[in-house]
Amino acid sequence: MDTVTVLGLLAGSLTTLSFAPQAVRAWRTRSTADLSLSMLIVLLAGVLLWLAYGVVRGDPAIVAANAATAVLVGLTLLVKQSG
Amino acid sequence: MDTVTVLGLLAGSLTTLSFAPQAVRAWRTRSTADLSLSMLIVLLAGVLLWLAYGVVRGDPAIVAANAATAVLVGLTLLVKQSG
Repeated sequence: MDTVTVLGLLAGSLTTLSFAPQAVRAWRTRSTADLSLSMLIVLLAGVLLWLAYGVVRGDPAIVAANAATAVLVGLTLLVKQSG
Repeated sequence: MDTVTVLGLLAGSLTTLSFAPQAVRAWRTRSTADLSLSMLIVLLAGVLLWLAYGVVRGDPAIVAANAATAVLVGLTLLVKQSG
């Protein structure tokens, strides 16, 4: 794996990590009243477009980071919608 | 500009947009007690690494999105640290 891909994977680990506490909290507490629905929808749409962009560009760092973030944001949105 | 770059710029617009309300709110209210400092630091570090990744890859969509997001997250962090 080349150095640039490692840089991308590191970047993706950090940005994905920053969404983890919110997803875990929403999943555990099932309480999401303070989360903005429109923010979550815009964020999920953006992350899914980045995922598509990574697939088209054949860029593993972009694909990995946005697939993981999409799961986290998707879970958070799911809890919010089922609440 | 090719279609793939347009896809990337659209993706970046959405993910950047999702951070704007929080930055505007922090700037206006100067109230950031409910924001996690460690989350902001991890997020800013990740966004800056993505920016570096975009520069090295010569990818304008990644550079534009992460430069804009870095300003928003950086401003939020600045308000938090000066509070």
